[in-house]
Amino acid sequence: MARQKMQIKIMQNVLAANDSKAAELRDLLQRKNIFMLNLISSPGSGKTTLLEKTIPLLQDKFKVAIIEGDVETDRDAQRLEQFKVPVALINTSGACHLESVSIEKAFTSLDLDNLDLIIVENVGNLVCPAEFDIGEDAKIALLSTPEGDDKVIKYPLLFREATLAILNKIDLLEHANFDMQAFYADLQKINASLDVIEMSCKNNVGLDLWINWVEKKILLKIAH
Amino acid sequence: MARQKMQIKIMQNVLAANDSKAAELRDLLQRKNIFMLNLISSPGSGKTTLLEKTIPLLQDKFKVAIIEGDVETDRDAQRLEQFKVPVALINTSGACHLESVSIEKAFTSLDLDNLDLIIVENVGNLVCPAEFDIGEDAKIALLSTPEGDDKVIKYPLLFREATLAILNKIDLLEHANFDMQAFYADLQKINASLDVIEMSCKNNVGLDLWINWVEKKILLKIAH
Repeated sequence: MARQKMQIKIMQNVLAANDSKAAELRDLLQRKNIFMLNLISSPGSGKTTLLEKTIPLLQDKFKVAIIEGDVETDRDAQRLEQFKVPVALINTSGACHLESVSIEKAFTSLDLDNLDLIIVENVGNLVCPAEFDIGEDAKIALLSTPEGDDKVIKYPLLFREATLAILNKIDLLEHANFDMQAFYADLQKINASLDVIEMSCKNNVGLDLWINWVEKKILLKIAH
Repeated sequence: MARQKMQIKIMQNVLAANDSKAAELRDLLQRKNIFMLNLISSPGSGKTTLLEKTIPLLQDKFKVAIIEGDVETDRDAQRLEQFKVPVALINTSGACHLESVSIEKAFTSLDLDNLDLIIVENVGNLVCPAEFDIGEDAKIALLSTPEGDDKVIKYPLLFREATLAILNKIDLLEHANFDMQAFYADLQKINASLDVIEMSCKNNVGLDLWINWVEKKILLKIAH
């Protein structure tokens, strides 16, 4: 029990240090007029595919950069190389989430005087990425229909913390064990004000709504 | 940098304490002639569905218990209530993985003198559950086709540590972005001796192979 208490104390210190650094980063982004999104999902929900679809639709209007969080490979970063936008790769060396110190380090390889939007692809995990503030303006919770409708209630922190939920792979809805009514009923309980976009990245469904959402948020921050 | 070094040191201590407790549990299971599996996957790959299909096929031959790891709900434990086997629920209070101390605690609610098989459903996460030994005889890595074929190379530790990989939802193969050749090529690189079962829990495909695998392992341990 003493060990458990010590671990909780250590975890509280880690979170407090993380939050304090995140607040610094948020101030910096405010001064530099950059909007930053933190994209969180299970492995394989379609985060990188969403980025592949998003970058070409935004890069003519805005100066975009990506921060790629991955446990140990550069597979996702490689997939984004074709777009000629700055991609900063963070290998977490086994850690299951990004922390604000990693983002600070990634910033050193980006030209912050020449950016409007940074999208951070967090490590594929619904638990810890929701706990660690990285200085973002908004967390995006991405869920895909084959994962099942119970993820909102099973991983509520993410859906409480998120500003937008994207339900991806709706093209697989008829094959998946996913009850749309149960999904929305759970969201109503956990976070009634959460925006939701139903999407099929594969079939370009819902991408227009997403691009519109991002553009509005960027303009709102820049105008502010 | 000093803080990072301190965190690494703390993490090493946590892992060492966990491993030492796991070794104790492994000895205990050996003495009690119980075979224990540690089921690991992303959220929504089908761990609980696999248990729903598995329990009825084993419970006539073996005395089975389940340990359910969940971040904060009892949703999965509820789904297993119908089977009348002992289910011990561990809520991790936000933690993204099970540790051996949690398993030790769960053991106190199980009758270890009256069991042949314990299946542990770990928290849905491909990262940390692979790092924490819980005293199991074997880790099972469950992956589903909609998650994509790149998960083996992106989360290699799990596939290195696993004794068996189950590729679930092969009924969705034609709709998923999953290259079977790439999947097997990556497995060959990461863990060439890993057993693989292709499965569709939904359509009862591959369940016979899985049940056969489990039965053989139990008998091997009991006979030993």
